[in-house]
This record gives sequence, C-alpha cells and structure tokens, in this order.
Amino acid sequence: MNSIVWQPTPVTKEDRRRLNGHSSCAIWLTGLSGAGKSTIACELELTLHRRGLRTYLLDGDNLRHGINADLGFSEADRSENIRRVSEIAKLFVDAGMIVIAGLISPTREDREKARGRFGEREFYEVYVECPIEVCKQRDPKGLYKKALAGEIRNFTGIDAVYEPPENPDIVLHTDRMAVSDCVAEIIRHLEEQGVIPQASGIGQAATTVRERR
Amino acid sequence: MNSIVWQPTPVTKEDRRRLNGHSSCAIWLTGLSGAGKSTIACELELTLHRRGLRTYLLDGDNLRHGINADLGFSEADRSENIRRVSEIAKLFVDAGMIVIAGLISPTREDREKARGRFGEREFYEVYVECPIEVCKQRDPKGLYKKALAGEIRNFTGIDAVYEPPENPDIVLHTDRMAVSDCVAEIIRHLEEQGVIPQASGIGQAATTVRERR
Repeated sequence: MNSIVWQPTPVTKEDRRRLNGHSSCAIWLTGLSGAGKSTIACELELTLHRRGLRTYLLDGDNLRHGINADLGFSEADRSENIRRVSEIAKLFVDAGMIVIAGLISPTREDREKARGRFGEREFYEVYVECPIEVCKQRDPKGLYKKALAGEIRNFTGIDAVYEPPENPDIVLHTDRMAVSDCVAEIIRHLEEQGVIPQASGIGQAATTVRERR
Repeated sequence: MNSIVWQPTPVTKEDRRRLNGHSSCAIWLTGLSGAGKSTIACELELTLHRRGLRTYLLDGDNLRHGINADLGFSEADRSENIRRVSEIAKLFVDAGMIVIAGLISPTREDREKARGRFGEREFYEVYVECPIEVCKQRDPKGLYKKALAGEIRNFTGIDAVYEPPENPDIVLHTDRMAVSDCVAEIIRHLEEQGVIPQASGIGQAATTVRERR
C-alpha cells in the first residue's frame, strides 16, 4: 500500500467543532440484544439535537442494510462489522459530530480495538446492562425466541458469548432505570468531560470556545 | 437477513438540515489521477466551511488508511471501495452535511450504482476532466511514473480503463480552468439547485427553510 499518500485537508476537526460550538465524540453503547441500546440511543440523540448539537446515530442493524449488507453473523463478519462501524464513527467525530453507535459488540477485543482508533475524550463506552432473563422477556424483535428455537445461530447470550466491559465509562442498569435517567446520566458525563456545553448556556459556551482561540 | 429489523430514528435528515440552515448532498468528483480532484475538493470544502456550511471530505486515498485498509486494487476491490465510500457518503447526507467525495471511480457502472443510493438533488457527479498527457506531466504523487515502469498494476489510464461520464452534472476542464473557477462553478450549481443558500443571505435562507415547515 506504499502507493497511497495521505492528503492533509485544509478544514480540520477543530474548525468543524468550532463552527458547531461543541466538541465531538463517539458514544458506544454495548450490551445484549433487548438491553435497550437503540431506545437509549434514539432518546439521547433527540435530547442532544433539541439542544442544538450536531448528532448522528449509527445503528448496527440499520447499517446492515447498507455498508454492511455484505456481512453475515460469523465471528469474523461480526468483528468486521464492528471495525467498519468504528471507522465510520471516527469519520463522524472528525466531521465534528457527536455520533452514537449502538451495537451488541460482544467481545472486549473488538471494543478495545474500536476505542484504540480514537483520541482522548473522543470515545465513551456505555455498558447498557440488563439481565438476560429480562432481555428474553422483552424480546422486542422476537430474536430470542428464534435463537432458542435454533432458527438463528451465533446469537449473543444464547449460543455466543457476551463479555461485559471491565472498565466502561458509564454503566446503565436498564432493568431498574428509566430511559430518561439513562440519557441524563450520559449527558451529565459529556458535560463533565467538556464535550458539550452545560444545558443552561449553549450560546455562551459556544462563544467561550471561540474566545479561547 | 430476515432477522434484521430496520429501526426508524426520531431525528430525521430534515431535522438535521433545518438545524444547519441548508440542505445536504454528495458531490462526487471523478476523473484520472492527477486531474485535480483532491485540490478542488479541498478548496471547495474550505469555501463552503467559511460560509458556515457543514461539510465533510471523503478522500478515496485517505479512506484506504482506515475503513478501506483491507482493500487492494483488483477490479472487485476497487468496486467495493466505491460502494463503501458511497454508502458512507449517504450516511453523511442523512446526517445533514455536504459531503465531498474524490475518487477516480473509473467505471460508469460503479458511479451509477453510487448515484442510485441517493434521492433527487442529493448526488452531483462532477467530471474533473484533464487530458492524460497533462496528468502524466503533473504526476503529483509520482504514480504515473511507477505505473509506466510497471511497479503499479491496474492503474487507471495506463493499464486500466477510465470511462468518462456520459451525463455528468458538472464538467470541469482543469487543464484550462483555475481551481477557484472550478469551485465557483460547483457552488453556483449548488445554489441553483437550492442545496445551499445564496452567498449573500445565509441567515436569511436558514430562516426561510424554517418558515416553510
């Protein structure tokens, strides 16, 4: 690949963040199917968008209709799926946006590789924790039923392993927390980390960023 | 793939466009190596960014360091490269941004497939035209020299074919047009198409978009 030259581009990540009035990062939601990743992702995006922040949502399932339509559910394909989503998330962070990625991403190795692609304060691992018995009861897409009937193979929690994060940035217990509390927890973390301005002073914070130049 | 359910998300492309005060689209620059795609892409992004518009640049070569690092230069891999870039561009258009993609993308079939992923006024094919003799003289990355020496295979214009667009949205003759004129031509087209507001009234146009709801 020595014929590929990296072309520096004149508009930088910092320029785009400045224009947006906030920093950019990836919020990586990991957990079992039915744990609530998509629900939290959607509600989080809506809340951030209403605050005038630039957001995008990468849903693991939705991407399988597009860029990852060529991938199946073997271990190798699941890893490749996660690799691509994390690379795309990185592009969105470079584009100055807050990107929310919801994927089961069952192995520590794949998640650590994903994290490794980002700089400091650019990647937050959120463990969406829920006992599998509760997930099975919810079964919002009917997938546990299919997996238990043997109609789906390599289904996380049934015949494929889920490795819980050892040191996640945030843990959400969705069996006993309301969605709004989960979202508030993530937003509080982003505020503390200085990724987004405090709720009360968006315009002010944007101005401060500009003044700091 | 019948186990994959599409999840509608609550923040829509229209919501994001409204927040940005302009529409979103992909500007697809095709042409020979050395024709000027990267130069025009960079200058175009800078001009749009300075007007306060949300932009991102997908450079074919740069993406080969990340999401497309697993791809080589066989015909199949080049097609897959283009497929992925167009799928990523589609995500950025969905995210409300003006995304500029610069890729040789030598075949009509691959470019038409790319176009087919987008809606009306969301994809503009720009033919960056330059006689190959001029490209060889420029040879900014020394690639023609290597290809002519047989060090690189499947190099477009040497031992791989380039199929000029039959009906591009814009044609730029970079052997006789200044970069600034090429950029102005694209911007004029985007204004005419209503993708971006006229230069003189960005704030006004953003308001108009909101009032139209």
